[in-house]
Amino acid sequence: MTQNSTHNNHSPSTVHRRIVALAGGVGGAKLAQGLAQILAPEELTVIVNTGDDFEHLGLYICPDLDTVCYTLAGLANPETGWGRANESWNTIANVESLGGPAWFRLGDQDIATHLERTRRLREGQSLSQITKDFCSAWGIQHTVLPMSDAPVRTMVDTDEGELAFQEYFVHRRCEPKVKGFRFDGVEGAEPVVGAKEALEQADAIVICPSNPWVSVDPILQIIKTINKPVVAVSPIIGGKTVKGPAAKMFDELGIEPSALAVAKHYRNILTGFVLDKTDSLMEDDVKNLNVQTLVTDTLMNHLTDRTRLAKDVLHFIGSL
Amino acid sequence: MTQNSTHNNHSPSTVHRRIVALAGGVGGAKLAQGLAQILAPEELTVIVNTGDDFEHLGLYICPDLDTVCYTLAGLANPETGWGRANESWNTIANVESLGGPAWFRLGDQDIATHLERTRRLREGQSLSQITKDFCSAWGIQHTVLPMSDAPVRTMVDTDEGELAFQEYFVHRRCEPKVKGFRFDGVEGAEPVVGAKEALEQADAIVICPSNPWVSVDPILQIIKTINKPVVAVSPIIGGKTVKGPAAKMFDELGIEPSALAVAKHYRNILTGFVLDKTDSLMEDDVKNLNVQTLVTDTLMNHLTDRTRLAKDVLHFIGSL
Repeated sequence: MTQNSTHNNHSPSTVHRRIVALAGGVGGAKLAQGLAQILAPEELTVIVNTGDDFEHLGLYICPDLDTVCYTLAGLANPETGWGRANESWNTIANVESLGGPAWFRLGDQDIATHLERTRRLREGQSLSQITKDFCSAWGIQHTVLPMSDAPVRTMVDTDEGELAFQEYFVHRRCEPKVKGFRFDGVEGAEPVVGAKEALEQADAIVICPSNPWVSVDPILQIIKTINKPVVAVSPIIGGKTVKGPAAKMFDELGIEPSALAVAKHYRNILTGFVLDKTDSLMEDDVKNLNVQTLVTDTLMNHLTDRTRLAKDVLHFIGSL
Repeated sequence: MTQNSTHNNHSPSTVHRRIVALAGGVGGAKLAQGLAQILAPEELTVIVNTGDDFEHLGLYICPDLDTVCYTLAGLANPETGWGRANESWNTIANVESLGGPAWFRLGDQDIATHLERTRRLREGQSLSQITKDFCSAWGIQHTVLPMSDAPVRTMVDTDEGELAFQEYFVHRRCEPKVKGFRFDGVEGAEPVVGAKEALEQADAIVICPSNPWVSVDPILQIIKTINKPVVAVSPIIGGKTVKGPAAKMFDELGIEPSALAVAKHYRNILTGFVLDKTDSLMEDDVKNLNVQTLVTDTLMNHLTDRTRLAKDVLHFIGSL
């Protein structure tokens, strides 16, 4: 990956520009939703991690892709961040009563997504085509792309051996200590049709506040080369993550979890970095990495927070 | 198939005897439930048609088997006869909104059965083992067996060409005119473990009021030889079926649909035949086939009707 330090000519007040956002699940989906509130459909492409995808109960499940789509469509469960709002759980309750695996909580509406996606994949349709059709059915106007149509599987090396990601993440609740990561299949995986074009036409790349190790790194490995300014939003606030095991992973890998640690993780491709006000004391350390900074509120509980942060990020991009 | 005219020594008042019931879907399930109200678990084995089984939305669906099990477990939808009581339809509604196939109405609870069965089949478990486990989970004490663990697929030859059974039955609503039937895979299919033993130990075989052409014939072709008294309950009352296309099939095959036509269909194996009171004028014609008869109420709307008919059938068997 190469850093491109060319600044574009947009004035800071021009928030409308072409953006490619890289996103994992919940945190990434929130910022993507904020960006979608401001940017026109042709101005935003969200490339989503599919390293978490897995087959379960015979269903092909794409947790991050679905979280991003449900969130953009306004269908996401506001309590959990994942799954559907107003969800019912009759199928999984009955699977459980039959002695089947119920550790991955699949809601009844959500199962429809997996059933129909699995059916179409078996028919030979690509994941990107299916995602496009689903986005259309859900009324999503911005472009959402899986990082690849080829299967890439995040494998977590732990003190209990290597675990498939969902086995580690959901079934084992991130309890085993992390030693490293491997993205099975990533070498041969190409970005989907439209991703390269979006990256070429983009004014900037936004790395959403997603897990650097298991949500963003797989996407970056597939994209391979970035020739545009990259702005990352820290998923770590005050040494902790809002959701998910990113901070725990840094810690277990021997790195003190912090916004600074995230900036260091991305330093080879980073133009700008967005820290929470809680971490303002780290701003100078980040600047010392030769990275420009924005300090703002990065917590995104409600849509207004998401839109405001997206606006801040777009202004920051305009100022780079 | 050979008819065995040996009468057993039970007195008519002894209703408890070992029975093997052959059943298709709704009608068969109703009589099986009636029999299960009277007979002890070790006295009743229900062998169920699986020629209607099909794969749909990636799910392995056994309509008749599930109808029999749901009915015996008291979980069946009393309105439709198929599917689950207190069912929700959130998954299929969402499959439909994604443009997926929704013509086969799968409820949320029902989908759990198919998901978990499909998962186990892919793991290499047999349909009979899975059925045994599901019956246990559902609290069914009597033995329910699929007719075979090998896939047998009922194909309907129609004036629009050959159609897979559910395509004909549900998707095309039995509209194409029937010319004949073929049970794909039936030649190599063996009865499941336990079926031969149950047939050997049985005092009599009861053919439930199911469709002779597409529900009972596949089972009979798999069983091949019957050396026990066979009593059939007519699924045709007053020239019509309570549910399903049996009468329409007789008609399209050039046979006037009637209880007599059903008795003639089974004449090679029949010891006794149960007609509805509506058809009492046909009793002599059936007797002329060298078949003993019972005329009674055969409509089974409620559990009390099912139990009463089962009791009548068992007394009739005792009198043969």
